Amino acid sequence: MRAVDLIRKKRDSGEHSRAEIDFLISAYTRGEIPDYQMAAWLMAAWLRGLNRAELAFLTDAMLHSGEVLQHSEIPGKKVDKHSTGGVGDKTSLILAPIVAAGGLTVPMISGRGLGHTGGTLDKLEAIPGFNTFLTLEEFRRVLRACGVGLIGQTAEIAPADKKIYALRDATSTVENIGLICASIMSKKLAEGIDALVLDVKTGTGAFMKREEDAVKLAEVMVETGERMGKKVVALITDMNQPLGRMAGHSNEVLESIAVLSGTGPEDLRNLSIELSAWMFFLGEKTADVEAGRVLAKAMITSGRAKAKFRENIELQGGDARVVEEPGRLPQARSRVDVASPAAGFISGTDCQQFGIALAILGGGREKKEDRIDFGVGLEFHSRIGDRVEKGQPLATIHYNADAKLDEAKALIANSYEITSAPPRELPKLIHRIILPEDAAPNKKV
Amino acid sequence: MRAVDLIRKKRDSGEHSRAEIDFLISAYTRGEIPDYQMAAWLMAAWLRGLNRAELAFLTDAMLHSGEVLQHSEIPGKKVDKHSTGGVGDKTSLILAPIVAAGGLTVPMISGRGLGHTGGTLDKLEAIPGFNTFLTLEEFRRVLRACGVGLIGQTAEIAPADKKIYALRDATSTVENIGLICASIMSKKLAEGIDALVLDVKTGTGAFMKREEDAVKLAEVMVETGERMGKKVVALITDMNQPLGRMAGHSNEVLESIAVLSGTGPEDLRNLSIELSAWMFFLGEKTADVEAGRVLAKAMITSGRAKAKFRENIELQGGDARVVEEPGRLPQARSRVDVASPAAGFISGTDCQQFGIALAILGGGREKKEDRIDFGVGLEFHSRIGDRVEKGQPLATIHYNADAKLDEAKALIANSYEITSAPPRELPKLIHRIILPEDAAPNKKV
Repeated sequence: MRAVDLIRKKRDSGEHSRAEIDFLISAYTRGEIPDYQMAAWLMAAWLRGLNRAELAFLTDAMLHSGEVLQHSEIPGKKVDKHSTGGVGDKTSLILAPIVAAGGLTVPMISGRGLGHTGGTLDKLEAIPGFNTFLTLEEFRRVLRACGVGLIGQTAEIAPADKKIYALRDATSTVENIGLICASIMSKKLAEGIDALVLDVKTGTGAFMKREEDAVKLAEVMVETGERMGKKVVALITDMNQPLGRMAGHSNEVLESIAVLSGTGPEDLRNLSIELSAWMFFLGEKTADVEAGRVLAKAMITSGRAKAKFRENIELQGGDARVVEEPGRLPQARSRVDVASPAAGFISGTDCQQFGIALAILGGGREKKEDRIDFGVGLEFHSRIGDRVEKGQPLATIHYNADAKLDEAKALIANSYEITSAPPRELPKLIHRIILPEDAAPNKKV
Repeated sequence: MRAVDLIRKKRDSGEHSRAEIDFLISAYTRGEIPDYQMAAWLMAAWLRGLNRAELAFLTDAMLHSGEVLQHSEIPGKKVDKHSTGGVGDKTSLILAPIVAAGGLTVPMISGRGLGHTGGTLDKLEAIPGFNTFLTLEEFRRVLRACGVGLIGQTAEIAPADKKIYALRDATSTVENIGLICASIMSKKLAEGIDALVLDVKTGTGAFMKREEDAVKLAEVMVETGERMGKKVVALITDMNQPLGRMAGHSNEVLESIAVLSGTGPEDLRNLSIELSAWMFFLGEKTADVEAGRVLAKAMITSGRAKAKFRENIELQGGDARVVEEPGRLPQARSRVDVASPAAGFISGTDCQQFGIALAILGGGREKKEDRIDFGVGLEFHSRIGDRVEKGQPLATIHYNADAKLDEAKALIANSYEITSAPPRELPKLIHRIILPEDAAPNKKV
């Protein structure tokens, strides 16, 4: 088998066999296929598409390019959640302790923020001492001890994905549903899970701005997961405004603790409970999703979820006192309000711009190498549908440096759409649920 | 400007500016854009296409990636011919001396054979001592002395093309009319010519098997040449059977000398005269093509073309006695006939297979590194339309090694289509002529 022939085949809209995909991925991972041949294949695949069978082969080959975790020594089901990312999306910090407290195991391998989105690992690192760089042995020990572990992609996990992702970034072959699906699913399935709940964001703050794209990605991921013998469900959820009231790393830890304490904003609480409920159901902890909701709420009201979070923080080397004493989280020195430029109703937001404003202030990354200022953050006071007066604070910026403050303020102020009439309808938190039977088979993606 | 953005633009069917193409080619040639980015761009260009303006920018950028020859010290026009290649296509060896004898300058930078086609440089090297590796200074000296020089692509000539061609070969991005055009035209225009006659082959022995593809390539090359201020005309000529009676390196030198001596097969003589006539006309040596034909024939009958060939061989270090004493060319040790498997009429040939049979016997290259056995060759006794008896020799193989003889014999015998009725019409030698006004403007290629 030769890479040049496989490139030609995909260029000419051919369909790859499992053996062909296995060869391509394993030889590339071993360095036997050079970057330039993989780059040509990726562009051909981007433009010609991969069908569902090819996608399952690709995901499987990337998954098996490294270690696939096994947790047979831990009783019960292992479940996880993956979100495609947005602004203020901190549900992992809430649902992981809820679901572990409820008796399932959550071996969560997460990512970092890039561009306008935050990353779970970065948020956890706002907690002094929290170590996301566990070895796989340490990860297993934490999982056995408390039922939840939160780490980053190690060198052993899906190395083909790491190598291919870097190449896609440099060759404009990132934004492709098939390649995105293979990248996400190969990493997530390497966790050794039985079931996965996908939170596919749609709206102005999501990667998939249009709902139809989010649905397509969700369908493809659900079907790929099913083909690989996993239970997978996707929730298409709203990202037309920030999730919760807080963005920024310390801020989001704070708001997650609030939800675990039974307070916090309604949208964030509801979505966290909903995602937890699906995890309980798919993990066979409850007979249906409704029973999952009840269990999730009970884990909050009983304080068991919060205790689980403390336990996990301690096991991963962090200062668990932050749960009761949030002042121990890094704080920004200064605060300033962003005033509404007009009176009227908030009828929409350009939500991605909030994430960009946060990154500009140091609370996000533009390049992989950038360091994050955990104390920097945004606090949102108004939501879509709210009436605001001219000059009323729409948001508060928590900042440390003046340099880009005006730019960030202007970005935020301009990202609210203010109209004289109220919006006809408010965005629904959960747009749709994609079950395995909804994912149409073997279409080109 | 960033390569990743240009890749995205072409991926999304965007149209490149001159500045963008210049950046891409010059940064790649300098090694500042890595192979994997160029590979992704090439695949995007292959699949999305380049329009005529982009193609002219690309050709120009590749042309100017190295030295563009100037022959201002040599009076009169400089002209050349390029053929897309086939089996037995030896017209360069004939028309270069004819046109130089007629008073124009022919600075010919040629290629080598690969796959089933022969290359002019390889054929010349069958002449003992003939040096195709002249420096550009030596090339100019030969040109000044005799009006014709025949060399290969030096490191100074279109280095971007050399680098890109190697990458295309490894990434299945070869067979694309736009990229083929840019590769050919950048090398040819670097010769410092005023006019170029293109011989675009079509038929079973050509790269462009279908006439419509040959016409499209011809149109694109003619328009690109025009955009760059050169006179360019293309002849679409037949390659449904070998050109002339001889294939193989010594054999083709021999047959070329026959035509220069006023004998040789009619098709080869006619095509050589026709191409020479167009060169005389475009080089403003004659007022029309008909006068060009008269001049070309006169150069043969007067013996001046043959004398010019001798002169050139001597100046490039070769043994010019081969012109009168062909026994000085390398000869194969053995000969064997290929018998007709049936009686009937030859109604067609799978001409590419003759080239492959020749390569199998050592008279061609499968890989760039392969050495050629100059003495090996094929002699064709029958042409399309001829009546043959069963057992009658269709061709004679000149060979040195028995190892692959049977394979070659079978290939050749099976490549003749023999039918009970004569073919309805014989292939026309010249299918069409593509003038600049025929080349439609700014279509995607």
